[in-house]
Amino acid sequence: MNKVEAIVLVSGGLDSCVTASIAVREYNCAFLHFGYGQRTQDRELKAFHNIADFNKIEEKIILNVDFLKIIGGSSLTDSSIKLGSTEINGIPDTYVPFRNGIFLSITAAYAETVRAEKIFIGAVWEDSSGYPDCQPVFYEKFNLAIKQGTRPGSNIEIITPLIHKTKSEIIKMGISNNAPLELTWSCYQNEDRACGICESCKLRIKGFKEAGIIDPINYI
Amino acid sequence: MNKVEAIVLVSGGLDSCVTASIAVREYNCAFLHFGYGQRTQDRELKAFHNIADFNKIEEKIILNVDFLKIIGGSSLTDSSIKLGSTEINGIPDTYVPFRNGIFLSITAAYAETVRAEKIFIGAVWEDSSGYPDCQPVFYEKFNLAIKQGTRPGSNIEIITPLIHKTKSEIIKMGISNNAPLELTWSCYQNEDRACGICESCKLRIKGFKEAGIIDPINYI
Repeated sequence: MNKVEAIVLVSGGLDSCVTASIAVREYNCAFLHFGYGQRTQDRELKAFHNIADFNKIEEKIILNVDFLKIIGGSSLTDSSIKLGSTEINGIPDTYVPFRNGIFLSITAAYAETVRAEKIFIGAVWEDSSGYPDCQPVFYEKFNLAIKQGTRPGSNIEIITPLIHKTKSEIIKMGISNNAPLELTWSCYQNEDRACGICESCKLRIKGFKEAGIIDPINYI
Repeated sequence: MNKVEAIVLVSGGLDSCVTASIAVREYNCAFLHFGYGQRTQDRELKAFHNIADFNKIEEKIILNVDFLKIIGGSSLTDSSIKLGSTEINGIPDTYVPFRNGIFLSITAAYAETVRAEKIFIGAVWEDSSGYPDCQPVFYEKFNLAIKQGTRPGSNIEIITPLIHKTKSEIIKMGISNNAPLELTWSCYQNEDRACGICESCKLRIKGFKEAGIIDPINYI
Protein backbone atom coordinates (compact mmCIF):
# COMPACT_ATOMS: atom_id res chain seq x y z
CA MET A 1 0.00 0.00 0.00
CA ASN A 2 1.27 3.48 -0.83
CA LYS A 3 2.03 5.93 1.95
CA VAL A 4 -1.03 7.89 3.08
CA GLU A 5 -0.41 11.58 2.40
CA ALA A 6 -3.81 13.02 3.19
CA ILE A 7 -6.84 12.03 5.23
CA VAL A 8 -10.28 13.03 4.03
CA LEU A 9 -13.23 13.16 6.40
CA VAL A 10 -16.06 11.59 4.43
CA SER A 11 -19.49 11.68 6.02
CA GLY A 12 -21.15 10.57 2.82
CA GLY A 13 -22.82 13.90 2.06
CA LEU A 14 -22.40 16.21 -0.92
CA ASP A 15 -19.72 18.42 0.59
CA SER A 16 -17.43 15.60 1.66
CA CYS A 17 -17.88 13.86 -1.70
CA VAL A 18 -16.78 16.98 -3.57
CA THR A 19 -13.95 17.61 -1.08
CA ALA A 20 -12.75 14.06 -1.70
CA SER A 21 -12.78 14.67 -5.45
CA ILE A 22 -10.37 17.58 -4.88
CA ALA A 23 -8.09 15.72 -2.44
CA VAL A 24 -7.63 12.58 -4.54
CA ARG A 25 -6.30 14.60 -7.48
CA GLU A 26 -3.24 15.68 -5.49
CA TYR A 27 -2.65 13.12 -2.75
CA ASN A 28 -2.77 9.45 -1.91
CA CYS A 29 -5.72 9.58 0.47
CA ALA A 30 -7.19 7.61 3.33
CA PHE A 31 -10.92 8.18 3.89
CA LEU A 32 -12.16 8.46 7.47
CA HIS A 33 -15.76 8.12 8.59
CA PHE A 34 -17.33 8.64 12.00
CA GLY A 35 -20.35 6.75 13.29
CA TYR A 36 -22.03 8.18 16.34
CA GLY A 37 -25.50 6.79 16.40
CA GLN A 38 -26.81 9.68 14.32
CA ARG A 39 -30.30 9.15 12.92
CA THR A 40 -29.17 8.07 9.45
CA GLN A 41 -25.93 6.32 10.48
CA ASP A 42 -26.35 3.21 8.31
CA ARG A 43 -27.25 5.16 5.20
CA GLU A 44 -24.31 7.53 5.67
CA LEU A 45 -21.93 4.60 6.11
CA LYS A 46 -23.23 3.06 2.89
CA ALA A 47 -22.62 6.36 1.09
CA PHE A 48 -19.11 6.48 2.58
CA HIS A 49 -18.23 3.02 1.25
CA ASN A 50 -19.71 3.77 -2.15
CA ILE A 51 -17.77 7.03 -2.48
CA ALA A 52 -14.54 5.42 -1.24
CA ASP A 53 -14.89 2.51 -3.63
CA PHE A 54 -15.63 4.88 -6.52
CA ASN A 55 -12.33 6.61 -5.70
CA LYS A 56 -10.50 3.26 -5.33
CA ILE A 57 -9.39 4.14 -1.79
CA GLU A 58 -7.22 1.45 -0.20
CA GLU A 59 -7.34 2.77 3.34
CA LYS A 60 -10.85 3.22 4.77
CA ILE A 61 -11.10 3.97 8.48
CA ILE A 62 -14.41 3.86 10.32
CA LEU A 63 -14.35 5.02 13.92
CA ASN A 64 -17.05 4.74 16.51
CA VAL A 65 -17.64 7.93 18.45
CA ASP A 66 -20.82 6.77 20.15
CA PHE A 67 -19.99 8.87 23.19
CA LEU A 68 -21.57 11.76 21.27
CA LYS A 69 -24.91 10.18 22.17
CA ILE A 70 -23.98 10.29 25.85
CA ILE A 71 -23.01 13.95 25.50
CA GLY A 72 -26.20 14.69 23.53
CA GLY A 73 -27.21 18.32 23.12
CA SER A 74 -28.35 17.91 19.50
CA SER A 75 -31.41 16.62 17.67
CA LEU A 76 -29.01 14.43 15.64
CA THR A 77 -27.74 12.56 18.68
CA ASP A 78 -30.61 12.85 21.16
CA SER A 79 -33.87 11.40 19.84
CA SER A 80 -35.85 13.26 22.52
CA ILE A 81 -35.05 16.52 20.69
CA LYS A 82 -37.28 16.89 17.62
CA LEU A 83 -35.49 17.76 14.36
CA GLY A 84 -35.94 21.45 13.56
CA SER A 85 -37.69 22.15 16.85
CA THR A 86 -35.48 24.75 18.45
CA GLU A 87 -32.51 27.11 18.27
CA ILE A 88 -29.98 28.28 20.86
CA ASN A 89 -28.38 31.66 20.18
CA GLY A 90 -29.34 31.36 16.50
CA ILE A 91 -27.74 27.92 16.07
CA PRO A 92 -30.09 25.13 14.87
CA ASP A 93 -30.83 22.09 17.07
CA THR A 94 -28.99 19.87 14.58
CA TYR A 95 -25.72 21.42 15.71
CA VAL A 96 -23.70 18.73 17.54
CA PRO A 97 -21.60 20.64 20.09
CA PHE A 98 -17.99 21.02 18.92
CA ARG A 99 -18.36 18.00 16.65
CA ASN A 100 -15.84 19.16 14.09
CA GLY A 101 -13.39 19.90 16.90
CA ILE A 102 -13.74 16.30 18.06
CA PHE A 103 -13.53 14.88 14.53
CA LEU A 104 -10.44 16.93 13.69
CA SER A 105 -8.64 16.06 16.92
CA ILE A 106 -9.11 12.38 16.24
CA THR A 107 -8.08 12.81 12.62
CA ALA A 108 -4.98 14.75 13.69
CA ALA A 109 -4.04 11.86 15.99
CA TYR A 110 -4.41 9.45 13.09
CA ALA A 111 -2.45 11.74 10.78
CA GLU A 112 0.34 12.00 13.36
CA THR A 113 0.45 8.21 13.69
CA VAL A 114 0.67 7.49 9.96
CA ARG A 115 2.67 10.70 9.27
CA ALA A 116 0.18 12.19 6.87
CA GLU A 117 0.39 15.97 6.60
CA LYS A 118 -2.96 17.01 5.16
CA ILE A 119 -6.49 16.71 6.52
CA PHE A 120 -9.36 17.58 4.19
CA ILE A 121 -12.76 18.50 5.59
CA GLY A 122 -15.75 19.71 3.61
CA ALA A 123 -16.78 22.46 6.00
CA VAL A 124 -18.89 25.22 4.44
CA TRP A 125 -19.51 28.56 6.04
CA GLU A 126 -21.43 31.13 3.98
CA ASP A 127 -24.15 28.90 2.57
CA SER A 128 -24.56 26.70 5.63
CA SER A 129 -26.54 26.20 8.80
CA GLY A 130 -24.27 28.54 10.75
CA TYR A 131 -22.63 25.96 12.99
CA PRO A 132 -19.80 27.69 14.89
CA ASP A 133 -17.35 24.87 14.15
CA CYS A 134 -17.71 25.61 10.42
CA GLN A 135 -16.31 29.16 10.64
CA PRO A 136 -13.06 29.82 8.74
CA VAL A 137 -11.48 31.35 11.84
CA PHE A 138 -12.13 28.14 13.78
CA TYR A 139 -9.93 26.22 11.33
CA GLU A 140 -7.19 28.85 11.53
CA LYS A 141 -7.11 28.52 15.30
CA PHE A 142 -7.40 24.75 15.25
CA ASN A 143 -4.45 24.48 12.87
CA LEU A 144 -2.37 26.44 15.37
CA ALA A 145 -3.47 24.16 18.20
CA ILE A 146 -2.56 21.03 16.18
CA LYS A 147 0.83 22.52 15.31
CA GLN A 148 1.58 23.02 19.01
CA GLY A 149 0.06 19.78 20.24
CA THR A 150 1.72 17.25 17.93
CA ARG A 151 5.34 16.07 17.61
CA PRO A 152 7.83 18.58 16.18
CA GLY A 153 7.98 18.04 12.43
CA SER A 154 4.49 16.57 12.13
CA ASN A 155 3.40 19.48 9.87
CA ILE A 156 -0.27 18.59 9.94
CA GLU A 157 -2.56 21.05 8.21
CA ILE A 158 -6.35 21.13 7.90
CA ILE A 159 -7.57 22.11 4.43
CA THR A 160 -11.12 23.36 3.86
CA PRO A 161 -11.45 23.74 0.09
CA LEU A 162 -15.19 24.50 0.14
CA ILE A 163 -15.41 26.85 3.08
CA HIS A 164 -16.23 29.98 1.05
CA LYS A 165 -18.33 28.23 -1.61
CA THR A 166 -22.08 28.24 -1.99
CA LYS A 167 -23.94 24.95 -2.31
CA SER A 168 -24.53 25.52 -6.02
CA GLU A 169 -20.83 26.23 -6.59
CA ILE A 170 -19.98 23.02 -4.73
CA ILE A 171 -22.38 21.03 -6.90
CA LYS A 172 -20.92 22.52 -10.09
CA MET A 173 -17.41 21.77 -8.84
CA GLY A 174 -18.46 18.19 -8.13
CA ILE A 175 -19.84 17.79 -11.64
CA SER A 176 -16.68 19.20 -13.19
CA ASN A 177 -14.50 16.88 -11.03
CA ASN A 178 -16.64 13.89 -11.96
CA ALA A 179 -17.56 13.39 -8.28
CA PRO A 180 -20.23 10.68 -7.80
CA LEU A 181 -22.99 12.94 -6.46
CA GLU A 182 -25.51 10.15 -7.07
CA LEU A 183 -23.80 8.15 -4.29
CA THR A 184 -24.15 10.85 -1.62
CA TRP A 185 -26.69 11.07 1.18
CA SER A 186 -27.73 14.34 2.84
CA CYS A 187 -31.07 13.75 4.55
CA TYR A 188 -31.01 14.01 8.34
CA GLN A 189 -34.32 12.19 8.72
CA ASN A 190 -34.71 9.21 6.38
CA GLU A 191 -32.55 6.37 5.10
CA ASP A 192 -34.51 5.18 2.07
CA ARG A 193 -35.88 8.21 0.21
CA ALA A 194 -34.77 11.70 1.27
CA CYS A 195 -37.46 13.64 3.15
CA GLY A 196 -36.96 16.84 1.19
CA ILE A 197 -37.94 19.01 4.13
CA CYS A 198 -35.19 18.76 6.75
CA GLU A 199 -32.64 21.55 6.90
CA SER A 200 -30.03 19.47 5.08
CA CYS A 201 -32.41 18.41 2.28
CA LYS A 202 -33.54 22.03 1.87
CA LEU A 203 -29.96 23.27 1.44
CA ARG A 204 -29.28 20.50 -1.08
CA ILE A 205 -32.44 21.09 -3.11
CA LYS A 206 -31.81 24.84 -3.21
CA GLY A 207 -28.21 24.22 -4.31
CA PHE A 208 -29.15 21.95 -7.22
CA LYS A 209 -31.89 24.38 -8.27
CA GLU A 210 -29.49 27.33 -8.28
CA ALA A 211 -26.89 25.29 -10.17
CA GLY A 212 -29.51 24.36 -12.78
CA ILE A 213 -28.67 20.67 -12.34
CA ILE A 214 -31.02 17.78 -11.62
CA ASP A 215 -30.41 16.12 -8.26
CA PRO A 216 -29.66 12.44 -9.02
CA ILE A 217 -31.11 11.10 -5.73
CA ASN A 218 -34.73 10.23 -4.96
CA TYR A 219 -37.04 12.19 -2.69
CA ILE A 220 -40.35 11.20 -1.11
CA MET B 1 -28.50 18.15 41.30
CA ASN B 2 -26.68 21.48 41.27
CA LYS B 3 -25.63 23.04 37.98
CA VAL B 4 -22.26 21.79 36.78
CA GLU B 5 -19.87 24.75 36.62
CA ALA B 6 -16.61 22.97 35.87
CA ILE B 7 -15.53 19.68 34.38
CA VAL B 8 -12.39 18.02 35.67
CA LEU B 9 -10.56 15.40 33.61
CA VAL B 10 -9.67 12.72 36.13
CA SER B 11 -7.47 9.90 34.88
CA GLY B 12 -6.89 8.63 38.39
CA GLY B 13 -3.23 9.68 38.58
CA LEU B 14 -1.52 12.08 40.97
CA ASP B 15 -1.80 15.15 38.78
CA SER B 16 -5.52 14.84 38.11
CA CYS B 17 -6.19 14.10 41.78
CA VAL B 18 -4.43 17.30 42.86
CA THR B 19 -6.08 19.28 40.03
CA ALA B 20 -9.45 18.03 41.26
CA SER B 21 -8.63 19.20 44.79
CA ILE B 22 -8.12 22.71 43.39
CA ALA B 23 -11.24 22.71 41.20
CA VAL B 24 -13.69 21.48 43.84
CA ARG B 25 -12.80 24.37 46.15
CA GLU B 26 -14.22 26.91 43.71
CA TYR B 27 -16.75 25.14 41.52
CA ASN B 28 -19.47 22.54 41.47
CA CYS B 29 -17.65 19.94 39.41
CA ALA B 30 -18.41 16.99 37.18
CA PHE B 31 -15.55 14.47 36.87
CA LEU B 32 -14.86 12.98 33.46
CA HIS B 33 -12.81 9.86 32.76
CA PHE B 34 -11.72 8.31 29.49
CA GLY B 35 -11.24 4.61 28.91
CA TYR B 36 -9.35 3.61 25.79
CA GLY B 37 -8.07 0.15 26.36
CA GLN B 38 -4.87 1.46 27.91
CA ARG B 39 -2.82 -1.19 29.72
CA THR B 40 -4.04 -0.30 33.21
CA GLN B 41 -7.58 0.77 32.28
CA ASP B 42 -9.42 -1.07 35.07
CA ARG B 43 -7.07 0.15 37.76
CA GLU B 44 -7.31 3.76 36.54
CA LEU B 45 -11.10 3.55 36.50
CA LYS B 46 -11.09 2.29 40.08
CA ALA B 47 -8.88 5.22 41.09
CA PHE B 48 -11.26 7.59 39.27
CA HIS B 49 -14.28 6.31 41.20
CA ASN B 50 -12.43 6.41 44.51
CA ILE B 51 -11.26 9.99 43.96
CA ALA B 52 -14.71 11.11 42.78
CA ASP B 53 -16.42 9.48 45.75
CA PHE B 54 -13.91 11.05 48.14
CA ASN B 55 -14.88 14.44 46.66
CA LYS B 56 -18.62 13.58 46.82
CA ILE B 57 -19.03 14.23 43.09
CA GLU B 58 -22.62 13.78 41.89
CA GLU B 59 -21.88 13.80 38.18
CA LYS B 60 -19.37 11.18 37.04
CA ILE B 61 -18.98 10.69 33.30
CA ILE B 62 -17.05 7.79 31.84
CA LEU B 63 -16.56 7.83 28.09
CA ASN B 64 -15.22 5.09 25.88
CA VAL B 65 -12.64 6.29 23.39
CA ASP B 66 -11.54 2.84 22.28
CA PHE B 67 -10.84 4.16 18.81
CA LEU B 68 -7.46 5.24 20.22
CA LYS B 69 -6.48 1.56 19.99
CA ILE B 70 -7.37 1.55 16.29
CA ILE B 71 -5.27 4.67 15.77
CA GLY B 72 -2.41 3.20 17.85
CA GLY B 73 0.98 4.84 17.58
CA SER B 74 1.77 4.48 21.29
CA SER B 75 3.03 1.78 23.62
CA LEU B 76 0.02 2.58 25.84
CA THR B 77 -2.51 1.70 23.15
CA ASP B 78 -0.64 -0.76 20.94
CA SER B 79 0.57 -3.83 22.83
CA SER B 80 3.00 -4.68 20.02
CA ILE B 81 5.08 -1.62 21.06
CA LYS B 82 7.12 -2.42 24.18
CA LEU B 83 6.90 0.15 26.99
CA GLY B 84 10.01 2.35 27.03
CA SER B 85 11.35 0.78 23.84
CA THR B 86 11.68 3.76 21.53
CA GLU B 87 11.48 7.50 20.95
CA ILE B 88 10.41 9.58 17.95
CA ASN B 89 11.92 13.07 17.75
CA GLY B 90 12.70 12.94 21.47
CA ILE B 91 9.12 12.04 22.46
CA PRO B 92 8.74 8.75 24.44
CA ASP B 93 6.76 5.82 23.01
CA THR B 94 4.12 6.28 25.73
CA TYR B 95 2.99 9.46 24.01
CA VAL B 96 -0.51 8.87 22.59
CA PRO B 97 -0.73 11.12 19.52
CA PHE B 98 -2.76 14.28 20.24
CA ARG B 99 -4.52 12.55 23.11
CA ASN B 100 -5.08 15.70 25.13
CA GLY B 101 -6.43 17.40 22.02
CA ILE B 102 -8.98 14.60 21.66
CA PHE B 103 -9.85 14.59 25.37
CA LEU B 104 -10.29 18.36 25.47
CA SER B 105 -12.44 18.46 22.33
CA ILE B 106 -14.80 15.92 23.81
CA THR B 107 -14.82 17.71 27.14
CA ALA B 108 -15.53 21.01 25.39
CA ALA B 109 -18.53 19.40 23.68
CA TYR B 110 -19.79 18.19 27.03
CA ALA B 111 -19.18 21.59 28.62
CA GLU B 112 -21.08 23.28 25.79
CA THR B 113 -24.00 20.89 26.24
CA VAL B 114 -24.32 21.37 30.01
CA ARG B 115 -23.21 25.03 29.82
CA ALA B 116 -20.22 24.64 32.09
CA GLU B 117 -17.54 27.27 31.54
CA LYS B 118 -14.40 25.74 33.04
CA ILE B 119 -12.42 22.64 32.11
CA PHE B 120 -9.65 21.56 34.48
CA ILE B 121 -6.85 19.33 33.24
CA GLY B 122 -3.77 18.30 35.20
CA ALA B 123 -1.27 18.78 32.39
CA VAL B 124 2.31 19.29 33.53
CA TRP B 125 5.06 20.63 31.34
CA GLU B 126 8.43 21.30 32.98
CA ASP B 127 8.73 18.15 35.08
CA SER B 128 7.09 15.79 32.61
CA SER B 129 7.73 13.33 29.80
CA GLY B 130 7.79 16.10 27.20
CA TYR B 131 4.57 15.21 25.40
CA PRO B 132 3.79 18.02 22.93
CA ASP B 133 0.14 18.20 24.01
CA CYS B 134 1.27 19.19 27.51
CA GLN B 135 2.96 22.43 26.45
CA PRO B 136 1.47 25.66 27.85
CA VAL B 137 1.26 27.17 24.37
CA PHE B 138 -0.87 24.23 23.21
CA TYR B 139 -3.52 25.15 25.78
CA GLU B 140 -3.40 28.81 24.78
CA LYS B 141 -4.06 27.87 21.16
CA PHE B 142 -6.66 25.27 22.03
CA ASN B 143 -8.59 27.78 24.13
CA LEU B 144 -8.76 30.06 21.08
CA ALA B 145 -9.98 27.19 18.92
CA ILE B 146 -12.71 26.31 21.43
CA LYS B 147 -13.79 29.93 21.66
CA GLN B 148 -14.26 30.05 17.88
CA GLY B 149 -15.77 26.60 17.49
CA THR B 150 -18.53 26.71 20.11
CA ARG B 151 -21.77 28.69 20.33
CA PRO B 152 -21.42 32.43 20.97
CA GLY B 153 -21.58 32.99 24.71
CA SER B 154 -20.33 29.53 25.63
CA ASN B 155 -17.24 31.05 27.34
CA ILE B 156 -15.47 27.74 27.81
CA GLU B 157 -11.96 27.97 29.20
CA ILE B 158 -9.35 25.28 29.84
CA ILE B 159 -7.50 25.71 33.12
CA THR B 160 -4.16 23.99 33.77
CA PRO B 161 -3.31 24.79 37.39
CA LEU B 162 -0.27 22.49 37.53
CA ILE B 163 1.35 23.22 34.21
CA HIS B 164 4.41 25.01 35.61
CA LYS B 165 4.75 22.89 38.76
CA THR B 166 7.30 20.19 39.47
CA LYS B 167 6.11 16.78 40.64
CA SER B 168 7.28 17.50 44.19
CA GLU B 169 5.39 20.80 44.24
CA ILE B 170 2.28 19.00 43.03
CA ILE B 171 2.61 16.42 45.78
CA LYS B 172 3.02 19.10 48.44
CA MET B 173 0.04 20.98 47.05
CA GLY B 174 -1.99 17.76 47.20
CA ILE B 175 -1.05 17.22 50.85
CA SER B 176 -1.95 20.79 51.74
CA ASN B 177 -5.32 20.48 49.92
CA ASN B 178 -6.04 17.18 51.64
CA ALA B 179 -6.14 15.41 48.26
CA PRO B 180 -6.43 11.61 48.62
CA LEU B 181 -3.05 10.72 47.11
CA GLU B 182 -3.38 7.20 48.51
CA LEU B 183 -6.26 6.60 46.08
CA THR B 184 -4.29 7.51 42.94
CA TRP B 185 -2.69 5.17 40.40
CA SER B 186 0.27 6.15 38.21
CA CYS B 187 1.90 2.93 36.99
CA TYR B 188 1.67 2.32 33.23
CA GLN B 189 2.50 -1.35 33.55
CA ASN B 190 0.76 -3.06 36.48
CA GLU B 191 -2.66 -2.99 38.12
CA ASP B 192 -1.93 -4.58 41.52
CA ARG B 193 1.39 -3.25 42.82
CA ALA B 194 3.14 -0.43 40.96
CA CYS B 195 6.19 -1.60 38.96
CA GLY B 196 8.41 1.25 40.17
CA ILE B 197 10.40 1.26 36.94
CA CYS B 198 8.14 2.60 34.17
CA GLU B 199 8.50 6.25 33.22
CA SER B 200 5.40 7.23 35.18
CA CYS B 201 6.47 5.39 38.34
CA LYS B 202 9.93 6.94 38.09
CA LEU B 203 8.52 10.47 37.91
CA ARG B 204 6.24 9.74 40.87
CA ILE B 205 8.97 8.19 43.04
CA LYS B 206 11.35 11.07 42.28
CA GLY B 207 8.59 13.59 43.14
CA PHE B 208 7.81 12.03 46.53
CA LYS B 209 11.52 11.78 47.32
CA GLU B 210 12.11 15.43 46.49
CA ALA B 211 9.06 16.46 48.50
CA GLY B 212 10.35 14.48 51.48
CA ILE B 213 7.01 12.66 51.76
CA ILE B 214 6.38 8.91 51.91
CA ASP B 215 4.41 7.62 48.90
CA PRO B 216 1.26 5.97 50.32
CA ILE B 217 0.92 3.37 47.56
CA ASN B 218 2.63 -0.03 47.33
CA TYR B 219 5.38 -0.99 44.93
CA ILE B 220 6.68 -4.40 43.92
